Amino acid sequence: MLVAYAGTRYEGWQSQRKGNTVQEHIERALARLAGAKVNVLGSSRTDSGVHAEGLVAHFKADIDMAPARLRQALNHLLPPDIQVRAIRIAPEGFHARYGARSKVYRYQIWTGRERPLFEAPYWLWYHGQLDIPAMRQAARRLVGKHDFAAFKDSGDEKKITVRTVKALRIRKEAQKVIIRIEADGFLTHMVRIIVGTLIDVGRGRKAPADIDRILLSKDRRQAGPTSKALGLFLEKVRY
Amino acid sequence: MLVAYAGTRYEGWQSQRKGNTVQEHIERALARLAGAKVNVLGSSRTDSGVHAEGLVAHFKADIDMAPARLRQALNHLLPPDIQVRAIRIAPEGFHARYGARSKVYRYQIWTGRERPLFEAPYWLWYHGQLDIPAMRQAARRLVGKHDFAAFKDSGDEKKITVRTVKALRIRKEAQKVIIRIEADGFLTHMVRIIVGTLIDVGRGRKAPADIDRILLSKDRRQAGPTSKALGLFLEKVRY
Repeated sequence: MLVAYAGTRYEGWQSQRKGNTVQEHIERALARLAGAKVNVLGSSRTDSGVHAEGLVAHFKADIDMAPARLRQALNHLLPPDIQVRAIRIAPEGFHARYGARSKVYRYQIWTGRERPLFEAPYWLWYHGQLDIPAMRQAARRLVGKHDFAAFKDSGDEKKITVRTVKALRIRKEAQKVIIRIEADGFLTHMVRIIVGTLIDVGRGRKAPADIDRILLSKDRRQAGPTSKALGLFLEKVRY
Repeated sequence: MLVAYAGTRYEGWQSQRKGNTVQEHIERALARLAGAKVNVLGSSRTDSGVHAEGLVAHFKADIDMAPARLRQALNHLLPPDIQVRAIRIAPEGFHARYGARSKVYRYQIWTGRERPLFEAPYWLWYHGQLDIPAMRQAARRLVGKHDFAAFKDSGDEKKITVRTVKALRIRKEAQKVIIRIEADGFLTHMVRIIVGTLIDVGRGRKAPADIDRILLSKDRRQAGPTSKALGLFLEKVRY
């Protein structure tokens, strides 16, 4: 299943202590249709407040409905800020998390003089000048296979911290700055720390060349701050 | 002052029993800056859930700040879904409500197959075909000076129910249908009942020619349903 949601009201896709998560809502809706507990496994654990346009999840359930019909039935049961966009029969052995080849995240920054009013949950508001060419130079240094230990949350205990950033592009359109990043996998808060570091470069607090030093340090304190969750979208997952 | 807000969380601009209204928030912020109670009077009483891009309000206060500075100070105190977009010294005798020559409202309908997910608070979702040429014919019959008694909420006790609709236009762009209406004044729920009636025409439940009959009846039950507040924006007020 392909799932989209506005993350504002949720504790992410999945939380440690079960809470108000997107996964819970979908499992509850599926259980009502299957008449039994259904486990749903998602491609990504998005943080609280993060949005998704194309999270992929798989599940196994005995429901006597065509996929298109099941999709409608689920959307009828789900809250309006969670939406199942497609359902297909998965090939044998498909795994939403382990099968993912890469994931694309998008981060949205609004640089206008005024706070974004009607779209507030979807934009980081940064009122000031950002040096986009410098940010692009910094971004280029992050592309490729690197040890991203400096770009993971200190609470993340993963031992293997090498990831491959396949693309990292920055687009500017009037007051909007859009950062799109594709990688074979992400450490906890990796996108948000990369964005926080790129903003530091855009503000002149760091130089593009500092990126190499930060990567080599493997030290979280060398990178920039973790940017807010609200500007972040999981855009798509590739298999 | 020119005020914009996302109305989702509020009981409108002003409510009978004082509650969580936009006016209250602005009065509270002004009182903090003035050190005394300040009364704010708005051009329009928007319903609960209705949004505004350009509501005009006036107030009298003794605050030693230039208007631009005052605007910043207010926005700093206001919640993120209420924004003061401009402040100017009003000419002597200016009255935000009585001085208004006309008001422009916009109603947004989303006709896509899927519910609008990220912009849910700003669109009425109508999944189905709307006959736009028929709606435009009906709209033309509403333009001009008419007794709109059939288009006011039964709770509205106003005796004078003649209003002049200066313009009523329907624009279609892909899945979006935008209805824009300008009048010298509006009765309670008048925009929402007009929109509900136009949707009835678009669905073939009423014919464009029925509009004349409804106007003449002066009977609320002849018009269509009151459409939801969520798709409605107060766009601008002219003086």
